[in-house]
Amino acid sequence: MTATRAAGAPGSAAPGRPLLLEGALVLTLDDEGTAGDLSVAVEAGRIAAVGPKEELRRRFPRAERKDCSGHILLPGLVNAHLHPELHVLKGAVEELNLHDWDDAEHFDDALALLSSPEGAWIQRAGIRAALADCLLTGTTCVAAYGVTVGADEVTAREMVELGLRGVVTVRDVHFAPVDTPPGMPSRIYRLHAEEALTTAELEAAARAHERGERIIMHAAETQYRIRLVRERFGTTTIRLLERYGLLSPRMLLSHALYVDEEEQALVAERGAAVISSPAAEMKLSDGIAPIAEYLARGVTVALGTDTAVCNNSNDLFLEMRQLGLVQKLRYGADAVPADQILRAATRGGARALGAEGEFGVIVEGASADLILVDTANPRLQPLVHRDGYSNVVANLVYAATGQDVTDVMIAGRWVVQDRRLLTADAPAIWQELERAAVHLYDRIL
Amino acid sequence: MTATRAAGAPGSAAPGRPLLLEGALVLTLDDEGTAGDLSVAVEAGRIAAVGPKEELRRRFPRAERKDCSGHILLPGLVNAHLHPELHVLKGAVEELNLHDWDDAEHFDDALALLSSPEGAWIQRAGIRAALADCLLTGTTCVAAYGVTVGADEVTAREMVELGLRGVVTVRDVHFAPVDTPPGMPSRIYRLHAEEALTTAELEAAARAHERGERIIMHAAETQYRIRLVRERFGTTTIRLLERYGLLSPRMLLSHALYVDEEEQALVAERGAAVISSPAAEMKLSDGIAPIAEYLARGVTVALGTDTAVCNNSNDLFLEMRQLGLVQKLRYGADAVPADQILRAATRGGARALGAEGEFGVIVEGASADLILVDTANPRLQPLVHRDGYSNVVANLVYAATGQDVTDVMIAGRWVVQDRRLLTADAPAIWQELERAAVHLYDRIL
Repeated sequence: MTATRAAGAPGSAAPGRPLLLEGALVLTLDDEGTAGDLSVAVEAGRIAAVGPKEELRRRFPRAERKDCSGHILLPGLVNAHLHPELHVLKGAVEELNLHDWDDAEHFDDALALLSSPEGAWIQRAGIRAALADCLLTGTTCVAAYGVTVGADEVTAREMVELGLRGVVTVRDVHFAPVDTPPGMPSRIYRLHAEEALTTAELEAAARAHERGERIIMHAAETQYRIRLVRERFGTTTIRLLERYGLLSPRMLLSHALYVDEEEQALVAERGAAVISSPAAEMKLSDGIAPIAEYLARGVTVALGTDTAVCNNSNDLFLEMRQLGLVQKLRYGADAVPADQILRAATRGGARALGAEGEFGVIVEGASADLILVDTANPRLQPLVHRDGYSNVVANLVYAATGQDVTDVMIAGRWVVQDRRLLTADAPAIWQELERAAVHLYDRIL
Repeated sequence: MTATRAAGAPGSAAPGRPLLLEGALVLTLDDEGTAGDLSVAVEAGRIAAVGPKEELRRRFPRAERKDCSGHILLPGLVNAHLHPELHVLKGAVEELNLHDWDDAEHFDDALALLSSPEGAWIQRAGIRAALADCLLTGTTCVAAYGVTVGADEVTAREMVELGLRGVVTVRDVHFAPVDTPPGMPSRIYRLHAEEALTTAELEAAARAHERGERIIMHAAETQYRIRLVRERFGTTTIRLLERYGLLSPRMLLSHALYVDEEEQALVAERGAAVISSPAAEMKLSDGIAPIAEYLARGVTVALGTDTAVCNNSNDLFLEMRQLGLVQKLRYGADAVPADQILRAATRGGARALGAEGEFGVIVEGASADLILVDTANPRLQPLVHRDGYSNVVANLVYAATGQDVTDVMIAGRWVVQDRRLLTADAPAIWQELERAAVHLYDRIL
């Protein structure tokens, strides 16, 4: 995965000079769960060392130092499923399920306008706002999935401009690569959802997959879609994907709610990843994904916020909270402990996107994709971290929101500092979004 | 209900001089759903008028004016079920259901310490932090329910000091009134939960109820508790309460999950209120309350955050979001529209506490309990309000959090301005909470 880094942009550290992040309560999320009052050294965009303050000061005597006391330092969050341009429609398609969207004329009209040349500025306004929202709430990597014409290309360019790391999906069902602008992040091929499945689509996907492409699909999200597959192919979605050789560690199953135990075992055995978007799945009345069962089988689970049309927020902290609450509702109060949830939102996302060890974890050699969370407020308080007991992860998952994120670094570059976006004029982004929404609603409502 | 107002405290408007709140997008939540660019006049702690800016400027020529543009102005939220002192235990009793708490020795030890003279400062630290958290996140009225010795008296005093409106429960099961300090808000008698039900308790509650006392009970929260009642009394919780004449508009049923259709009809007919705390109910794996059915029957529904032990947050915005998401999960995507949720968090709470028309609504004559929500951020954007269509309420319910609240007024007095608590030193509150938690955990873990 390519880092989305622009040279000489605001917030860059002095070239060549290391940076020591000192005084924070660090959650590395490494295999041992190393956590505590540690320093992190950043050099040339990467994590150069993690260790006690004095030791790192000795190793990096010329380093710039940043006092991060009063903060939790953790890996940036990964949003593995986001339709960014629909941010402009937030609140406009309420109280409907996924399949009623098709009957909501104004929704179709909106997609048509966003897909047209005259609606391009509206599409771009939604994309910029969604991505800025992600950055400001602690997301450092996004897998963006456009649903209107040209959205993926615009998203790729805006990611570069805003300094957000990410991948985009390829727009057409024949998997023709998009014309990637310089610095564009890598891509995921999409096999949209059950409605679009034909033998030809599946065969094309299988060929792409064999070539090494990573595939994403809205899979088994609703019972309606499962029925569609059964009627057309005489089997279930997961079994159909297996028939075409499409289950592998390069397969990303978004949602994956209606997956029986035999299929879960197959998903686990093949190493496919599941992307859970619990807020959207609740709001659309899809149901509850068997995430506790996936995790028990060792399946890679990542988190996504889906779209503002059915979630209204890109805040992955709220999504972590949602995953825990809804899994406990289904599987019992001890299901999916907070640490597993935080790992899904970081390492799980990195693994699903093929970047395990590159980000989502604070270890020597990984990209410096880091966030700081302010602890001096009632959400994070009381905060107690000690040998044998810590409530830090529970507070992050169940009490914090993205609004507690003060600073965001991607590949060693500060993109957000003191809650201020450094790579763009955030108030102008919200103003443009509102102007776009008013224009859009004038047309479609 | 007595306003918790201290004379001459910071944030008071000049005595006798009216205040015009201008430029906000006002949601009155009145019967007609009046909303738009309106001014609100506040005089002597009450709403003196609601209307167009120029009209109010003519009617109140000497008034002080506050520019609220870029904000939504709405009634303060009502948290109808909160155990404030347990804030100190946030994150310390994770991954357990309600009945496993009894087996968690450290939880019992914590309650014992908080109930002891040496733990009084810890109890107070938790209470102050919880109430300050409520204020800063837009809650103007709390029904607080102490579960440790003396907590209710401390809560009552702290409410007065912090400027929060509220009621407390009475501490002992025989309903002896507490020794109320001057300025203490009114009270609710408590009939704790099914575990504590005996014939003597029920008879005492019935007498108190006949005297006019308002009663609160953790009712029908779990199947385990329903079984307890059936074993002891041969019936269900709601039918048992009916047998003792305890269902009336002065009965507050907290949770009320396991209530069959006949009982729901009884609750509706008797006018009892239901307090929903969906985040806690999910985290404890209680289940999903039949809120959509209660609302369809005309039952008064209020919202609560329960306790930091099973919710980790007192943010009623998150609770509104949770109620909508979980009801849609159970009843379909069109269940419990956002407007009903916002009304539950405001007017519903006021009605449950016997204060309908006094707060929870912006109409002439009501107490001036108001909050301002900042709209210049991606959570609230895009924000479109126009004839026939508005996404304002959907944004408030599904995208905003309490961190978007900038200003809070209670009975005409500013208690929070520009996100700053005026009635206490907020950073000192969090520091004291952390000191208390560290001390507590040293003892119990």
